[in-house]
Amino acid sequence: MIDTPTLVDQYCHGVLRTELGLGTFEARLGAQLGGTAALPAAGTTFFDTQTGFAVRRWCPPLLGLEPHCPPARYLARRRELGVAEAGRRLLRASGISTYLVDTGLPGDLTGPAEIAAAGAAEAHEIVRLEPLAEQVADTSGTVEAFLANLAEAVHGAAAEAVAFASGAGVRRGLAHTPEPPGPGEVRGAAGRWLAGRAAGDRLTDPVLLRHLLWVAVTAGRPLQLHTGDRDPSAVAGFATATAGLGADLVLLHAYPYHREAARLTAVHAHVYADLGPVLAHTGARAAAALAEVLERAPFGKLLFSSGAHALPELHVVAASTFRSALSRVLGDWVADGAWSRTDAQRVATMIAGDNARRVYRLGPAVSPRW
Amino acid sequence: MIDTPTLVDQYCHGVLRTELGLGTFEARLGAQLGGTAALPAAGTTFFDTQTGFAVRRWCPPLLGLEPHCPPARYLARRRELGVAEAGRRLLRASGISTYLVDTGLPGDLTGPAEIAAAGAAEAHEIVRLEPLAEQVADTSGTVEAFLANLAEAVHGAAAEAVAFASGAGVRRGLAHTPEPPGPGEVRGAAGRWLAGRAAGDRLTDPVLLRHLLWVAVTAGRPLQLHTGDRDPSAVAGFATATAGLGADLVLLHAYPYHREAARLTAVHAHVYADLGPVLAHTGARAAAALAEVLERAPFGKLLFSSGAHALPELHVVAASTFRSALSRVLGDWVADGAWSRTDAQRVATMIAGDNARRVYRLGPAVSPRW
Amino acid sequence: MIDTPTLVDQYCHGVLRTELGLGTFEARLGAQLGGTAALPAAGTTFFDTQTGFAVRRWCPPLLGLEPHCPPARYLARRRELGVAEAGRRLLRASGISTYLVDTGLPGDLTGPAEIAAAGAAEAHEIVRLEPLAEQVADTSGTVEAFLANLAEAVHGAAAEAVAFASGAGVRRGLAHTPEPPGPGEVRGAAGRWLAGRAAGDRLTDPVLLRHLLWVAVTAGRPLQLHTGDRDPSAVAGFATATAGLGADLVLLHAYPYHREAARLTAVHAHVYADLGPVLAHTGARAAAALAEVLERAPFGKLLFSSGAHALPELHVVAASTFRSALSRVLGDWVADGAWSRTDAQRVATMIAGDNARRVYRLGPAVSPRW
Repeated sequence: MIDTPTLVDQYCHGVLRTELGLGTFEARLGAQLGGTAALPAAGTTFFDTQTGFAVRRWCPPLLGLEPHCPPARYLARRRELGVAEAGRRLLRASGISTYLVDTGLPGDLTGPAEIAAAGAAEAHEIVRLEPLAEQVADTSGTVEAFLANLAEAVHGAAAEAVAFASGAGVRRGLAHTPEPPGPGEVRGAAGRWLAGRAAGDRLTDPVLLRHLLWVAVTAGRPLQLHTGDRDPSAVAGFATATAGLGADLVLLHAYPYHREAARLTAVHAHVYADLGPVLAHTGARAAAALAEVLERAPFGKLLFSSGAHALPELHVVAASTFRSALSRVLGDWVADGAWSRTDAQRVATMIAGDNARRVYRLGPAVSPRW
Repeated sequence: MIDTPTLVDQYCHGVLRTELGLGTFEARLGAQLGGTAALPAAGTTFFDTQTGFAVRRWCPPLLGLEPHCPPARYLARRRELGVAEAGRRLLRASGISTYLVDTGLPGDLTGPAEIAAAGAAEAHEIVRLEPLAEQVADTSGTVEAFLANLAEAVHGAAAEAVAFASGAGVRRGLAHTPEPPGPGEVRGAAGRWLAGRAAGDRLTDPVLLRHLLWVAVTAGRPLQLHTGDRDPSAVAGFATATAGLGADLVLLHAYPYHREAARLTAVHAHVYADLGPVLAHTGARAAAALAEVLERAPFGKLLFSSGAHALPELHVVAASTFRSALSRVLGDWVADGAWSRTDAQRVATMIAGDNARRVYRLGPAVSPRW
Repeated sequence: MIDTPTLVDQYCHGVLRTELGLGTFEARLGAQLGGTAALPAAGTTFFDTQTGFAVRRWCPPLLGLEPHCPPARYLARRRELGVAEAGRRLLRASGISTYLVDTGLPGDLTGPAEIAAAGAAEAHEIVRLEPLAEQVADTSGTVEAFLANLAEAVHGAAAEAVAFASGAGVRRGLAHTPEPPGPGEVRGAAGRWLAGRAAGDRLTDPVLLRHLLWVAVTAGRPLQLHTGDRDPSAVAGFATATAGLGADLVLLHAYPYHREAARLTAVHAHVYADLGPVLAHTGARAAAALAEVLERAPFGKLLFSSGAHALPELHVVAASTFRSALSRVLGDWVADGAWSRTDAQRVATMIAGDNARRVYRLGPAVSPRW
């Protein structure tokens, strides 16, 4: 048996404080899968997905029900316990001992301190760059003030946060070139954006998004990049451009391009890859997806996460799926003689948490070098 | 055991009425695999492919021979029975109870009524858009008449056909933008095409192909799109542009981008994915390919098909491969405790036919909702 | 048991003549994985990769040690034997009977004759196009002389070499169009390159690289193309443009796009695919990667190679991994009834060496046609 004692969830969000019914719970499942529609297609349900089946496999027993019980029965039990108690039971059973929490998404979500308390765990903040820039824009009167305040805000956040995350940066900011925009280009883009925006408007300008990524790179903390479920070739150019500057890049959400993301971690010393949704969204197929990531990535470059948002069930599903997949994949390789048991246990401990502890400087790593 | 009692083949073509020899049969195998050359490379044969091996596995026993017998022996037995009797035996053993037949490819192929009679099954017509537009062009004297007749022909076909299919639409029509072309642009393209064409010329103009897709979308029937064996990102833009307009999109032939196609079905309520050539062309690997499609697609969004053309052996291979793969993949997940047996049987029934019955309004669905 | 008696390694490089320490050996592992950094990331090692684990699985027993022994112990034993004796033991245990050697990479590497002697095998030369062009440029005084000498050098090499290889041709030369550049365009590019270059400068001009590929195509020998670990769609256009001209194309290094490369071998009669790094770099996952390549490629179109460079351990790992993977994948299909044992043995013999013997005209093929 390969053992994965405690997990560091290197990328997740908080959980909702409000009670959920069958429809609102299902909508959250659909959103987690990347759905753009509020409702599933007529005649279908988001429960009929690997994630839906995985929730029904792993979570009902934690609330005293049979695995695979119908969604309505599970939701009834969840309401009976109350959202806080259900969340506590779920998070405490997940095996996650440290949560790194991206606090930049809207909604009535618990913050790092609440997650830590509910889960009897540690938690640290990840600062999302786009909302930070939007807040700075809300309070800056001129282009010069905005740009100065933005740099100050990013560097200030770097003192507290364990990492930065960017949502739209890769998809919109790096589509054409990875290079930092020139000062005049940045001032022009900032002037147009500030002149046209109302308070609360989202940052979508490609030049400002690219500028923001480069400001974050100079702040020296690891930078987590949503690769937008598309071919990470835009990321490849950014990786080349940022080599040797001191900030690590962590590629999030690469499925179905997770093999390409894993390959980039072998090519670039400062590039890491996340395992989150690659495993959490594939349910019964997670072992196969994990095995694909393990083809080309150096084992010191992979980081467990849940990528969970809003539902503590998603933290549980990610952790349970990961542990089950890791144990199966590495166990099979040991049984075949392809890996030694010692190596397999060492790699499991690295991916489960020690790599994250090293990259985010969370505390002493446990796994031995040679 | 997971049971898949009857299949709806949601996309196929008719079968040849002429007798075939070893060389002509092999050429059909090569064409099915996407080959552009009439002949295989020197020293190789199209029988040495997964499809060739799958034909030799599943079909000889249906004609009274040993599985895996040499191609020449199989072809001799086929000629002994005659093309009609061999076709009847093969189709009736396939387990397909409903065929949706794209009638738009050239060649001496049986139509829906003949397939239904040969296979003791139902059959319905899928209207292929490009040949329809070419027929309209053959009989329209002016640009205005062509465009009016085209709209009328598409809406007229929608009253009879279960779906539309487009072959070149994605590859050539959506390469640059998914948006509908403006009226002036369409008139200009139609004028140039009509002026330059001889009767029978194929439609390849990108603007007219895009116009044709948008006319079909307004007709309200499901629109089946050949994704051209390439990255379905062009389809992704079209899916975003057509959301909420009432026509479903069904992605055909996505291999090796079937995971991306499956993911699009999770993102867009009106997008579905076909399993046809993904399974029919991968033979001994079909279970692995099916499992990949099942990673991210909601299970209500997947549709069995054969994609078969010209050879009834290809209908048999697709159906046998699908049933065998589905039973193995879902059976393994049940054995692991990842899925419940009830869920597995329900999902099997959905993909085998009930999803197609709902999308194409073929009759009552059997599989229960929650 | 599926048997793969002797292997033709259809693409490799020579091995280093110098002794290696732990750090220099690890750097070679990193380079083989495509790494651009001289050093692994802090806290990680290139030994913690599938390739590193595969070296520790297969090689220590050939030098009298336990499998999976620590890297330092293995390197100590290697130095104790000496680089020449260790190389002989490793290569002779690989089961490779014929090496095709790309001699165009810099470094103190053994040539074909030395590899043949060390490995008790045959060896033939593959001529790499870019260094050949650079040598011609070093010795040609004018544009006219350069272009004439280049054509003569390529056609002269074709008389001796078994194949040509191109490293940068696809990535830089075919990025925009696959068509041969016109004579004026070539003269202009040659003039600019010759005027600006110092002796020894590398060829990176896209027009000259494309010209070079087309000169090689007219020489009639197989042309091996590094696809640069990216989507082989640039190769697809070149395959269409070169159909019927008499030169075969062999796609190298397609991972993670090996399924797309395999599909191209089904579409184009003159296109072949290499199995080298797809298997050699995936270690415990090689059987899964091999199975993916076998989905769509005609079995007469696949060629074993090691892709090994500098370390004889990499020839051993590739050969051992390939044999183990092939035996497992085909053996499972026979056990399932999907393939006959006769077919499986025939396909194994084809991929292990007979396909290469036919494509490179190395001697009589062993595997029977129907």
